[in-house]
Amino acid sequence: MKKKGTRAERELFHILYDNGFMPCRIAGSGSTPLPSVDLVVGNGKKHFAIECKVIKSKVKYFHPDEIIQLEEFSTKFGAEPWIAIKFDYKGWFLLQPKTIERTKNGYYSISLELAKEKGLNLETFFKL
Amino acid sequence: MKKKGTRAERELFHILYDNGFMPCRIAGSGSTPLPSVDLVVGNGKKHFAIECKVIKSKVKYFHPDEIIQLEEFSTKFGAEPWIAIKFDYKGWFLLQPKTIERTKNGYYSISLELAKEKGLNLETFFKL
Repeated sequence: MKKKGTRAERELFHILYDNGFMPCRIAGSGSTPLPSVDLVVGNGKKHFAIECKVIKSKVKYFHPDEIIQLEEFSTKFGAEPWIAIKFDYKGWFLLQPKTIERTKNGYYSISLELAKEKGLNLETFFKL
Repeated sequence: MKKKGTRAERELFHILYDNGFMPCRIAGSGSTPLPSVDLVVGNGKKHFAIECKVIKSKVKYFHPDEIIQLEEFSTKFGAEPWIAIKFDYKGWFLLQPKTIERTKNGYYSISLELAKEKGLNLETFFKL
């Protein structure tokens, strides 16, 4: 799962680079107590902090701490917080944390339906 | 030398974090054909792309490609390009590429004298 996540992160990195963005893969994201994210991306004007996820199932759950860390990093750095999620055979969707639903136990969740409804596909994200 | 560079990079990372900046160490900087830098740093308003160097001698030379890559990355990402250089027993100095002298063979060079004259110490950099 770790390997697959890294592969997806690299895939998104190259998609962004090929479309005029300057992405950076962050060293040690996920293994440091300091807030961090997977990718930091700029296009000369705007900056984006992106957590990348790839899933096989139909719903991805996030521990509240993951969302808090993404938002804290983004505020301190000066970037928009985004989650990039890749569903098998459906491709990438990009969502802002504020659009994600919260489950009864406090976790956040993104279903394919939510991603389609509230998320952006890559072409739309490129125009931001 | 590689190890010492990484240690210095981590040291600068923590100094910046402790002073209200949100730094990121970039994975694979120096080992990718795409433009990259050692640290990308934001403070919620401004963004900085930083190449870190630590030297024992009195002058640090840079291949022109290093400077070109730093400037290209910074323009595409949307950040100010900076070089952070640590001289033994003298601490950190921060310089922008435009202030660096060019040698006759096309290399760029930073001497301790130039760093003191044209560079900022950390306290001054924090106020940018």
